[in-house]
Amino acid sequence: MMKMHTVRFLPHEMEISVSDGETIIRAALEIGVHVNASCGGEGVCGKCRVIVEDGTVEGGISEMLSQEDQDKGYRLACQAAIKGDLIVRIPVESAIDPSVLKMQAAPRRTAHITEMNFEELKEKGLFVAPVEKKYLKLPEPTTQDNLPDITRLISYLKLKHDEHRLEVDLSVIRKISSVLRQDDFNVTATLVRPVRDVGKTRIINVEPGNATRRSYAIAMDIGTTTIYGQVIDLLSGEVLAEHGEFNGQISYGEDVISRIVYAEKPGGLERLHAVVISTINDVLRKIVRHSKVNPDGISTITLAGNTTMTQLMLKVNPRFIRRSPYVPAATLYPPIKAIDLGMELGDHVTALVYPAVSSYVGGDIVAGVMGSGIYRSDELTLYLDVGTNAEIVIGNKDWLACAACSAGPAFEGGGLKFGMRAAKGAIEDFSLDPVTLDPMLITIGNVRPKGICGSGLITMVATMFDMGIIDNLGKFDRDLDTPRIREDNGVCEYVLAWKDESQIDRDVVLTEIDIENLIRAKGAIYSGCMTLLTEVGMSVQDIEHIVLAGGFGSYVDLEKAMIIGLLPEMDPTKVTFIGNGSLLGARMSSLTNRIRKDVVEVTKKMTNFELSDTPSYMDNYIAALFLPHTDMDQFPKLKARLQARKNQQPQK
Amino acid sequence: MMKMHTVRFLPHEMEISVSDGETIIRAALEIGVHVNASCGGEGVCGKCRVIVEDGTVEGGISEMLSQEDQDKGYRLACQAAIKGDLIVRIPVESAIDPSVLKMQAAPRRTAHITEMNFEELKEKGLFVAPVEKKYLKLPEPTTQDNLPDITRLISYLKLKHDEHRLEVDLSVIRKISSVLRQDDFNVTATLVRPVRDVGKTRIINVEPGNATRRSYAIAMDIGTTTIYGQVIDLLSGEVLAEHGEFNGQISYGEDVISRIVYAEKPGGLERLHAVVISTINDVLRKIVRHSKVNPDGISTITLAGNTTMTQLMLKVNPRFIRRSPYVPAATLYPPIKAIDLGMELGDHVTALVYPAVSSYVGGDIVAGVMGSGIYRSDELTLYLDVGTNAEIVIGNKDWLACAACSAGPAFEGGGLKFGMRAAKGAIEDFSLDPVTLDPMLITIGNVRPKGICGSGLITMVATMFDMGIIDNLGKFDRDLDTPRIREDNGVCEYVLAWKDESQIDRDVVLTEIDIENLIRAKGAIYSGCMTLLTEVGMSVQDIEHIVLAGGFGSYVDLEKAMIIGLLPEMDPTKVTFIGNGSLLGARMSSLTNRIRKDVVEVTKKMTNFELSDTPSYMDNYIAALFLPHTDMDQFPKLKARLQARKNQQPQK
Repeated sequence: MMKMHTVRFLPHEMEISVSDGETIIRAALEIGVHVNASCGGEGVCGKCRVIVEDGTVEGGISEMLSQEDQDKGYRLACQAAIKGDLIVRIPVESAIDPSVLKMQAAPRRTAHITEMNFEELKEKGLFVAPVEKKYLKLPEPTTQDNLPDITRLISYLKLKHDEHRLEVDLSVIRKISSVLRQDDFNVTATLVRPVRDVGKTRIINVEPGNATRRSYAIAMDIGTTTIYGQVIDLLSGEVLAEHGEFNGQISYGEDVISRIVYAEKPGGLERLHAVVISTINDVLRKIVRHSKVNPDGISTITLAGNTTMTQLMLKVNPRFIRRSPYVPAATLYPPIKAIDLGMELGDHVTALVYPAVSSYVGGDIVAGVMGSGIYRSDELTLYLDVGTNAEIVIGNKDWLACAACSAGPAFEGGGLKFGMRAAKGAIEDFSLDPVTLDPMLITIGNVRPKGICGSGLITMVATMFDMGIIDNLGKFDRDLDTPRIREDNGVCEYVLAWKDESQIDRDVVLTEIDIENLIRAKGAIYSGCMTLLTEVGMSVQDIEHIVLAGGFGSYVDLEKAMIIGLLPEMDPTKVTFIGNGSLLGARMSSLTNRIRKDVVEVTKKMTNFELSDTPSYMDNYIAALFLPHTDMDQFPKLKARLQARKNQQPQK
Repeated sequence: MMKMHTVRFLPHEMEISVSDGETIIRAALEIGVHVNASCGGEGVCGKCRVIVEDGTVEGGISEMLSQEDQDKGYRLACQAAIKGDLIVRIPVESAIDPSVLKMQAAPRRTAHITEMNFEELKEKGLFVAPVEKKYLKLPEPTTQDNLPDITRLISYLKLKHDEHRLEVDLSVIRKISSVLRQDDFNVTATLVRPVRDVGKTRIINVEPGNATRRSYAIAMDIGTTTIYGQVIDLLSGEVLAEHGEFNGQISYGEDVISRIVYAEKPGGLERLHAVVISTINDVLRKIVRHSKVNPDGISTITLAGNTTMTQLMLKVNPRFIRRSPYVPAATLYPPIKAIDLGMELGDHVTALVYPAVSSYVGGDIVAGVMGSGIYRSDELTLYLDVGTNAEIVIGNKDWLACAACSAGPAFEGGGLKFGMRAAKGAIEDFSLDPVTLDPMLITIGNVRPKGICGSGLITMVATMFDMGIIDNLGKFDRDLDTPRIREDNGVCEYVLAWKDESQIDRDVVLTEIDIENLIRAKGAIYSGCMTLLTEVGMSVQDIEHIVLAGGFGSYVDLEKAMIIGLLPEMDPTKVTFIGNGSLLGARMSSLTNRIRKDVVEVTKKMTNFELSDTPSYMDNYIAALFLPHTDMDQFPKLKARLQARKNQQPQK
């Protein structure tokens, strides 16, 4: 258990419980207490001065603090690590109305993580081992009993383990004779169970001696950007190793469309296939080495990816995915020998590929639906996987509707004046002094700011909107008296960090065009959800649960996302985060055949809507191009708060 | 229909119906009329003088015949082609007792050929097409109907052809999108039916337009010596092309044992696998070219071979086949992609490999059992495939017993002083003048004799035994007054052709050691049959039908084979010849799934006896080391004839 401490902020009278070693500035940000900070947490601007009135901190002393100040308990909040319960006072230089303090942003709320539980799976009867190993001591052949080696194995599997309807792979026939004679006819057979009851059990491997403890599977997410793999222990359900690598196909285009364009060139498909297999093999080598498992004990590999990534991996031309009416070659794929795809795995290993729903709702989303269990849920659930494309699934155990929409790159920091991926120097968190309008910037890696990543953008826009700095069209209040809001070439912008505070020797700014991009992106997603709900005759209020998948879900501040109208307004405790849904679903399929049995029915149940062909989509989209939305009644809590603020607002 | 003529031989008063153009000497031999001939039919010895008393012949005039003789109707029998009904007189130089004429050999009787009949198969309800092609005109996708290409195909196969439970190969997914768009969504799908009813129908190929007329299969016999292949039209059942090539593995050893020895060397298995696949590909290229079929229309390849050949083809080490207790790796093999074995066929083609019973009763024999239909027969049948190894199956629709025995190479002309394969110059037929003991030799290709092939050997030994030249131990009657019987280095021999009549500038002889070899070979086979019968509590008299397979069956003179005790004595009309049983079974499996469905049950039903471990075998073998057998009661007709002859025998 991590050691926790309580930090009380004054004069706000707000308390938060944080982990040992956390900085004061992050604790402040998390609960919504503003502390000026413009260097991203590097400790060079000296603006984040706080007074530790009681308790123990480590660090935070700087030459920017006089000895007198230090003696009074002043520390730099970004450098001071919390080592015990604290009372911290924020020195408010100007006399500030306490009601203004209360108007500051709501505390940060991220979604809680749902972890699949292997034991729970077993309890719920969902566990049907897809692979089992059986150990046998076979009698040696004699002239009176000279059964073929395979027949001997099968006979004794029947006799000793009550196994019936067995079939054998050629690779097993090739090795059986020598394997049996390596350890006096003591042998372990690997059995793969049929997904449907009428199927046969396949013997895919034989190993000398008792190898029943070595039973592993690989789960893999084939992302457009990154390929993640896991080694799973089939006996305990544990993940023994996990690793991600950039998909080598990135050199051939960042998004699926540019990959498809490349695949249409002569030799392009073969090239992209080879490249993705090469990355898969890199990941395989690393996770196998790291997990220290005997590779011969790996029996299956389950892969999930979007429709284009899946087709490229299978060397199926994705040409028609990008052409109206967006027809994929197939959405269900047969089991394939991993070595036939070029994967560096034993010749007994079968690759299982997650089925898709359509050209833009792929196996990664289906995997997420299976892994998150929403297809078994009573609650009406919104499943959301946000990246450059956003995929939306709404439904429960009775029905599922899905759609994909192009959100544009704003959530990944693309298309912004100072946009960047979530890397070192990206402003990932933000707060604003409601009086001075000075910012509090926290960057990834606590270095001077370099640009803005997706999570930072959402937080900034939400904070500014919440505080009335920008209006519901995303325009800055030009009447505000601050040098930070200015116009450059006719575009209004807010200066996040001045040139000398930044890493890049330029002012880092947020422009109205950036905000427009975000509004369009969130509008596309929200209207996608709305359209699905409209088409099935339901409304936002009917949603009982939100599941977030993908990197997005791990960093997004739920309150902020609801303020800008990206997510429907709902109790944050009803939002869960499953991480990489694609990988989760692949892992679940490795552990139980129930998922593989259910998945075909689920894909049939998932009604796909081509948003561009759904008339209500455009209306919903236009209505969503506001903060948070044209129809404020969809955001009743925010509406009430904004109303309350308006009434409270100190006159300027 | 071939034109037939009747030839009447005088003074024998024997008549035979022969094909137009046949030579008189072969007609004489067939009915058992002796004509002296020592040049093998080349027309140079001038001994085969006959008088054509009536009718038309072509040729037969030689400078060895005086003008006067020619005018009298003398012709050389080996050069005279029969062109109409004839009366032919054999000039008997010495006054010969007519009863002696009657003692000459029985007319030659070969087995009649059973041809599989496709229509009969259909009538008997045995026809379950394993592959079917379906033509569809699919609607083009629209925004309202953008099913995946595969789903579209499957939906319309259900809708238009009532096809259910379909599954799809990856190779079809890879090509479907482009194939559909080559001919406006007109497409032909190739469906492979499940062997068992519970299985799924697999879509293995798609072709643009209507390709339903192009539906072919390959049948192949993987022999130790020769690999035969056929292209079969699946709509008509016709064989469109057939070709055989020597198995390239011959360079690595003539028999299965030497191949196994080679396979045990490092890299040996891989080498032998590559070599046999190379020969298979040679045969494939030739039959595909010769049949002029579109290779894309070939859907399956069915292969049958002995257990060692099958394992080598599948790259399964045959190491333990040659070691007691003779355990093969497997006897049932899964379907395999032909390209995975290295075969030059479409990536949609599945290779089906005939199952075996044991190490020495292989898929070739099982194929023969299936192809000949003995597993469905009411009659107790003896199935015999004779080569270097002889495989024996006895049984009917209720039970089947089988065994293999090593006959040695005598039947293939091996191990004899002047033994040779059945090639040009081999004495293949033989008769003996009962008075002068001069031979009548017919060679393959009608050239001067060079050696003795298997069929010639059987005929010689049978004829000599029948005429009392050799006794029931195979020893020459040393009292006979002829220079042809002599001793050389203590071994008694009979001169078939003198040095100046032969091709090899040496006397061509048959030795007592050669005869011993033959007796051991036939003894091994006959005692194999006896042992199987003994083990199941039956006797030779219970056999109702004999099926001969392999090259042996095509040339062996049934009467002669019964005289030497190779085959049990039975009405020759009850003996049928199926040719290459392995190829026949492979063809049958290509045409109907019934065979593939039945074959697993049949192999389970085939009880294998390891003769070397069956105590009665050695007793039976020793009893069979006589002509025809120690127990003459097993050959009642021969016994009666020999008895009658003894009574008639003119005193010497």
